[in-house]
Amino acid sequence: MTDRLSQQIEFLTMADKLKDIFRQTVLTQTHRQENDAEHSWHLALMSLILVEHLDENGVDLLKVIKMLLIHDLVEIYAGDTFCYDTEGVKDQARKENGAADEIFPLLPSDQAKELRGLWDEFVEMITPEARYAAALDRLQPLLLNYNTEGHAWKKHHISKAQVVERNKHIEKASKRLWVFARNLIDSSVAKGYLADSPRK
Amino acid sequence: MTDRLSQQIEFLTMADKLKDIFRQTVLTQTHRQENDAEHSWHLALMSLILVEHLDENGVDLLKVIKMLLIHDLVEIYAGDTFCYDTEGVKDQARKENGAADEIFPLLPSDQAKELRGLWDEFVEMITPEARYAAALDRLQPLLLNYNTEGHAWKKHHISKAQVVERNKHIEKASKRLWVFARNLIDSSVAKGYLADSPRK
Repeated sequence: MTDRLSQQIEFLTMADKLKDIFRQTVLTQTHRQENDAEHSWHLALMSLILVEHLDENGVDLLKVIKMLLIHDLVEIYAGDTFCYDTEGVKDQARKENGAADEIFPLLPSDQAKELRGLWDEFVEMITPEARYAAALDRLQPLLLNYNTEGHAWKKHHISKAQVVERNKHIEKASKRLWVFARNLIDSSVAKGYLADSPRK
Repeated sequence: MTDRLSQQIEFLTMADKLKDIFRQTVLTQTHRQENDAEHSWHLALMSLILVEHLDENGVDLLKVIKMLLIHDLVEIYAGDTFCYDTEGVKDQARKENGAADEIFPLLPSDQAKELRGLWDEFVEMITPEARYAAALDRLQPLLLNYNTEGHAWKKHHISKAQVVERNKHIEKASKRLWVFARNLIDSSVAKGYLADSPRK
């Protein structure tokens, strides 16, 4: 297994494990937990459809999609960290960086370098492409939570302030999408899907 | 829900149901059935990594990925047809065309037209982008079957001739990938994952 194609196939076979990494968010129909692979597919699909709402012109959509397709691969080694788990989040960057050091070098070196660069760019959240990818990574669970009557929010006693803090990055990509997200959050509170204030 | 963003969000929320459409192929680690959303993610990731092996230059990778992300959406309405189910396959085109007539028009008309065009192009399998997408749609289940000791092949008593017939489209995109696939098929027979001849 030393030629390029064999290395690539080994990487792509390893990537199958992303389908076994489960998130806290649940699906709209069956309420089973979503896995990272189907989550990544959903974000990529969203990126195609919502690109017109970006504040900035000329965003490289292919680059956005590449980021979205690979953004969670590190979780095959590092596991999923629930975004509202304040203890888990402390150690997340170190664990995920270590995982990236293991995973991307499975590829031929030129591709390893490209994908690691894209993943670093996604994490840094500075370029327009990374800000769009990050916005979708927040908007999608918001949509699923709203459409499951706040399933994961209720389970983990999440309050509105936490959801606003987590999702405010959406505004850095699109004011229009942030207005939409704010309305969804307010509507979630009004419908009893999301607590207005933290549990005492 | 009449403005563009509301229509797009409605479409993207409906699309969540693709995660509940299960295929015959099983995952490498857990041997549970794969769903269409994670399958679509896997194909899109493969398209990034394997593009250098195409016989033709200048394939539009963004277009390939768009096709792969949407190629199975019709199955939300039409259900998954197992590719070796000769009875089911007869009615597949009619059912899936009907589903496409329902699903894509949920989007604003310009986007509905674009995605329907991409889906029709995928189904026709003529353009270089569609041939690449179709090749991956065959190669990926082959990889999963090989790495699960022929799980779905054994379950449905599939023989080598059927797998070769189904997968020969790979050659229309890439001779290199077809050589690889042929080797995988031969190796599957040698290891007892795939029957050399049809069951009597």
